[in-house]
Amino acid sequence: MVPAVQALTVDVFGTVTDFRSTIIDEGRRLGEAQGWPEIDWGEFADRWRGGYEPAMHQVRLGELPWTTIDPLHRMILDELLAEYGLDLDEVERDEFNRAWHRLRPWPDVIGGMNRLKNRYIVAALSNGNISLLTRMAKHAGFPWDCVLSAELSKHYKPDPEVYRTAAEYLDLDPGQILMTAAHIHDLEGARAVGFRTAFIPRPDEWGPDGSAEQPADGQFDIVARDFHDLADQLGV
Amino acid sequence: MVPAVQALTVDVFGTVTDFRSTIIDEGRRLGEAQGWPEIDWGEFADRWRGGYEPAMHQVRLGELPWTTIDPLHRMILDELLAEYGLDLDEVERDEFNRAWHRLRPWPDVIGGMNRLKNRYIVAALSNGNISLLTRMAKHAGFPWDCVLSAELSKHYKPDPEVYRTAAEYLDLDPGQILMTAAHIHDLEGARAVGFRTAFIPRPDEWGPDGSAEQPADGQFDIVARDFHDLADQLGV
Repeated sequence: MVPAVQALTVDVFGTVTDFRSTIIDEGRRLGEAQGWPEIDWGEFADRWRGGYEPAMHQVRLGELPWTTIDPLHRMILDELLAEYGLDLDEVERDEFNRAWHRLRPWPDVIGGMNRLKNRYIVAALSNGNISLLTRMAKHAGFPWDCVLSAELSKHYKPDPEVYRTAAEYLDLDPGQILMTAAHIHDLEGARAVGFRTAFIPRPDEWGPDGSAEQPADGQFDIVARDFHDLADQLGV
Repeated sequence: MVPAVQALTVDVFGTVTDFRSTIIDEGRRLGEAQGWPEIDWGEFADRWRGGYEPAMHQVRLGELPWTTIDPLHRMILDELLAEYGLDLDEVERDEFNRAWHRLRPWPDVIGGMNRLKNRYIVAALSNGNISLLTRMAKHAGFPWDCVLSAELSKHYKPDPEVYRTAAEYLDLDPGQILMTAAHIHDLEGARAVGFRTAFIPRPDEWGPDGSAEQPADGQFDIVARDFHDLADQLGV
């Protein structure tokens, strides 16, 4: 289907991990241990994740210096804890913030990725920093051939620098790389610099009341139900 | 033994791969296919590998711009082919140059590394570029948690920038990282910025007439016979 492709660069949060249910579980356990009153951890998870675009925007505008995602997550967490009136000491905050290192994979990811690895380089390409992605991969079992990150260009997706830098480190032309993600803006960013694109819908990314993003017909090279379907469509 | 350690950064050429025997085999096959006369491929391999320090030195002196190892290998190959009077076209040269992507592991490496991965982040830290290391890992089966490279700092080992940049991307203090290598100058470079150090002798790196480097007693934190012995000594 896309014969020139030699590598897949794969988005992480949302596309390969179920961040929401993991954060909810970690929050519940923490709340019980701390004796906190009932908290809507779904809302907390959505707001924690939702704070990340505006935080990246502050960096883009130069209001914050270049900051990796771990401290951005921590900044948002500190604001949320203050707003919810929840008290945690430094060690507990750091530990909760590292819940993002312990995200669970969607059930199709590891199996499908191992199939794709038989023919392609399969690399993470996330706004998450390399240490976060590396620890997450050890925890969740993601078999990345290499871990690439927005951190390498000190820009966030969908800025073109992120995709160009990834192509440079892979020593491939953009047209030899298939960006794989559940998010239209990420794939559009990759497409703008010449990557091929594969969309995988994740209707549960934002929980049972959420829905998958809906690309237009023909907007991307491939639309696959999940990583197994992507492997099927690529014939591996 | 080194309780604070959370990650191993591991040298690649020589330490985990038997580059010499791989280059000899690839050279022999190529020579037969090309109908070349008898060539001392051991000498050829040693000179190819041996050209790499002077080539890096030219970059350090500013006589060459920053160059990754693939084109440095190619530059040395072109010189050797000319000197040996051997003719190859562009495609064949590129293919032979990629022999460095197909190096075989020493027999203890994959097993020992998989044991070490149970407790530690195990990362490549090589002068090889990321695309070379990624392709080599797929070919040889190195189970790196992440691929780090001199390329990330645009310096070569043993320049301090390489080790400092690796520590930064791992989000660890230098004292939490164990540089693992068969080469004294690499370990000394890592130690100079605060890394812990493990030496693994590779007496066959330069062939049957070669010998392992000999560190002084107590020069490094650990001396291990191979990766299994390193795993034993670290209790994993």
